[in-house]
Amino acid sequence: MLTTDRLRHPDLFARITTADVAANLIADGMSVGVSGFTPSGYPKKVTLALAAAVKAGRRCRINLFSGASVGPEIENALAEVDAVARRTPYYAASNAAMREGINAGRIAYTDQHLSHLAPQIDCGFWGPIDVAIVEAVAITREGDLILGPGVGNTPMFVKHAKTVIVEVNTAQPLELEGMHDIAILPKPPFRREIPIYAPGDRIGETVVRCGIERIAAIVESDIPDRVRNLEPASPDQVRMAANLVEFLKHEQRKGRLPQRMLPLQSGVGSIANAVLAGLGQSDLEDLTLYSEILQDAVFELIAAGKVRQASGCAFTPSPAVLARFRADPELYRRALVLRPLDISNHPEVIRRLGVIAINTPLEFDVYGNANSTHTGGTRMMNGIGGSGDYMRNGYLSIFVTESTARDGAISRIVPMVAHPDHTEHDVMVFITEQGVADVRGLDPRERAQVIVANCAHPRYRPLLLDYLKDAERLGGHEPQALARAFEFHLNLARRGAMDRAAEPADALL
Amino acid sequence: MLTTDRLRHPDLFARITTADVAANLIADGMSVGVSGFTPSGYPKKVTLALAAAVKAGRRCRINLFSGASVGPEIENALAEVDAVARRTPYYAASNAAMREGINAGRIAYTDQHLSHLAPQIDCGFWGPIDVAIVEAVAITREGDLILGPGVGNTPMFVKHAKTVIVEVNTAQPLELEGMHDIAILPKPPFRREIPIYAPGDRIGETVVRCGIERIAAIVESDIPDRVRNLEPASPDQVRMAANLVEFLKHEQRKGRLPQRMLPLQSGVGSIANAVLAGLGQSDLEDLTLYSEILQDAVFELIAAGKVRQASGCAFTPSPAVLARFRADPELYRRALVLRPLDISNHPEVIRRLGVIAINTPLEFDVYGNANSTHTGGTRMMNGIGGSGDYMRNGYLSIFVTESTARDGAISRIVPMVAHPDHTEHDVMVFITEQGVADVRGLDPRERAQVIVANCAHPRYRPLLLDYLKDAERLGGHEPQALARAFEFHLNLARRGAMDRAAEPADALL
Repeated sequence: MLTTDRLRHPDLFARITTADVAANLIADGMSVGVSGFTPSGYPKKVTLALAAAVKAGRRCRINLFSGASVGPEIENALAEVDAVARRTPYYAASNAAMREGINAGRIAYTDQHLSHLAPQIDCGFWGPIDVAIVEAVAITREGDLILGPGVGNTPMFVKHAKTVIVEVNTAQPLELEGMHDIAILPKPPFRREIPIYAPGDRIGETVVRCGIERIAAIVESDIPDRVRNLEPASPDQVRMAANLVEFLKHEQRKGRLPQRMLPLQSGVGSIANAVLAGLGQSDLEDLTLYSEILQDAVFELIAAGKVRQASGCAFTPSPAVLARFRADPELYRRALVLRPLDISNHPEVIRRLGVIAINTPLEFDVYGNANSTHTGGTRMMNGIGGSGDYMRNGYLSIFVTESTARDGAISRIVPMVAHPDHTEHDVMVFITEQGVADVRGLDPRERAQVIVANCAHPRYRPLLLDYLKDAERLGGHEPQALARAFEFHLNLARRGAMDRAAEPADALL
Repeated sequence: MLTTDRLRHPDLFARITTADVAANLIADGMSVGVSGFTPSGYPKKVTLALAAAVKAGRRCRINLFSGASVGPEIENALAEVDAVARRTPYYAASNAAMREGINAGRIAYTDQHLSHLAPQIDCGFWGPIDVAIVEAVAITREGDLILGPGVGNTPMFVKHAKTVIVEVNTAQPLELEGMHDIAILPKPPFRREIPIYAPGDRIGETVVRCGIERIAAIVESDIPDRVRNLEPASPDQVRMAANLVEFLKHEQRKGRLPQRMLPLQSGVGSIANAVLAGLGQSDLEDLTLYSEILQDAVFELIAAGKVRQASGCAFTPSPAVLARFRADPELYRRALVLRPLDISNHPEVIRRLGVIAINTPLEFDVYGNANSTHTGGTRMMNGIGGSGDYMRNGYLSIFVTESTARDGAISRIVPMVAHPDHTEHDVMVFITEQGVADVRGLDPRERAQVIVANCAHPRYRPLLLDYLKDAERLGGHEPQALARAFEFHLNLARRGAMDRAAEPADALL
């Protein structure tokens, strides 16, 4: 039951309604923005109700805007009933129905740098936002929204939405109040600096401005975020983390990094979490994060006194870590700041702070281009997310991944990436369990030798060197043998392993 | 003869020496930074003397740092005698000996986003700078340097150089004094905002700080910059410019661009110049530029009262336009600001001002990736330059090019770019003489259809559609037929035209 600590003005109670009624506010063809970022702080009940209505025969296909991928109550529920016409700016492989719809071309998915969407909506590039569905912890006396643990693009959706639906979720702790720092940046020619000079700096308010009149419906919810527990770090991941720590300490010894480490950014997923945990186990002290997402390891590092300040647009605590938060919210509230996505990922702030960007690619090539999104160049796996925002603007840009996948059938290092998301100009360092390739200042031929020798798995090194030798016959600044550039990918598709050469009898792909 | 208007402290005269003596300060293996940006404001005499010494038998291979490509007195003179070991951050095809050295792999060339080099030097990523050779218009009483028309990375080279050599060039007009706005940005964690809120804002000084004691040699010069006259606009370029103007006005009508146009950035070369000239002939008024390089068209637009303010890191007037500058320097001094490259191309300022980025690619593909650098994926043509800095951070990012080259043998639109410099995430609009493809908000399949229909030449449309149809058989979010992705490039290499299919008898490339 919603009480006055969750709805802080009497008039708000009159707006409580059912999810079914709220879902009826969403019509076919509408553009709908949802709160949240990854399975954190996203609405659940209204989209489940909408999906049920569509399943029961109502025609409704929407354009779905979010911060990033959100939970199954949105992604799968709507995709399973074909209720999504368009999707942006991010999608993650864990949502099967959405994945199938996107890869079949039924859902028109636009994969974007995450820092770009909010300003583009503000400037009218995406047309009107008809409805915003926001999960809130509470609504203030003024009708403003106290968000859950994921901010994403919510402030911009609320600014533009003709209709605002709020799910007040009693499963989200009220102690989240005060952790947010919400600001809407002006449009050009009225933009000013973003006055963030340290990860913990605050420039806005703790609420998303809305106003009671603009709230069309309030729906009570108690469905918890569907945060999955992360896999424990594998031995290879532990080695990758150790390689990263050694590299950072080497940079400190060379005077290229200050003794008080610059702010870190770490991507999504188990590799990123393992890498951050590895940093925590090192003797590096007094760390800060200016990142997109704050996963479990950040909480461990705060509790251990290793991390002073951490800024993100969301945090995604597993159930165990959420319990820890509830037990000592003051500790985490002091250390954490949750911002809108266009500020957490803003090139101005990333470059100013000198963020050390650490992300995980699907594959990278001998010359240093990276694929973050498409397996085999065609199938969307995960969106590019914020990796480009950070890699392009970071003080150091580092990709970390295992050298192989699928028991060695896939080499993460290939002659040429089958889909470029980051170019050779954007990455300084590659790290696998095999070692570290620091390619700063190298020309393409040198980069290729260092990447193969230091990062590729021994199983694939001879093949990569053979490609380079063949490419060298044609010469040029960056030698390529275009007719063979996708040999690894074609081998995999035709014969099940990147080093299993196709035979003439194989069907031509 | 150097006089006291050029050397403003008596002690400076004692440092005058010959180019040969100055060249002797440069030893084998040294890292040498030169002033200038494109054939504008670069030193000439010392490098010519060094090249002559090497030709006569002295062993000297240097690491050459600059702002961008510079003139033949550096690029060709040094490359012809094999005196360049490394080169960064930019190179342009017009310098034949440098081109050959880079493509043969004799010269280790690192192609970089231009905004990146200065801060990376400051942070120690490139090792020490041994020598800076700076062309100056004059040296002040304090020993500080008044630069010519190209700033580039000169302030950072001078900051770090152990030895500073100054060429004082009497062929450069003294009226350049006062046009520069020089600031050196701090390193993290001490960075603050860059307080530029309009293209004409000034944040620094008009000189590069140096000091008399640090000047090891002064060499007199009177060699003019080797600025080539640009080709007059072709009919296709006129059509491209008209398409751009129409697009911008359409955006104004839709309310997505303000009536007072946002600042423009325009790349290097004749297409860029033609596009800018086309803007000048439109009824758009009160234009500003926040750009890297300011070519002839900018001067015309200033004289015509169309451009109020123009910021760049260099201007490159042809001989005719230089005469115009000399005739009324006050007019241009009011309108122009010359900045260091890391400020002219800084993502913070570009995004804040809402710059409309307009650049020219070598080729782009059906899904919106662009190649700015490598023909056939292997041979370096021109570096990426600042295009990435602007395209990634611009309010609008626009690529403009002809749909074909070499009498139609080359299609600028290909199934897959053979070298990615800009990914599909970074480009919003493509313009050729055929039309405009506005791909904002489209998914890959939609992008491909719009790009082929609106931008590709009719000769190549059926082939591109055939590729897409074949790719569609395999499906996926962004369908590719990897075995055929470089068919256009292989046709060109084997048979001389992108639409001339190779026959089995052709040698496998």
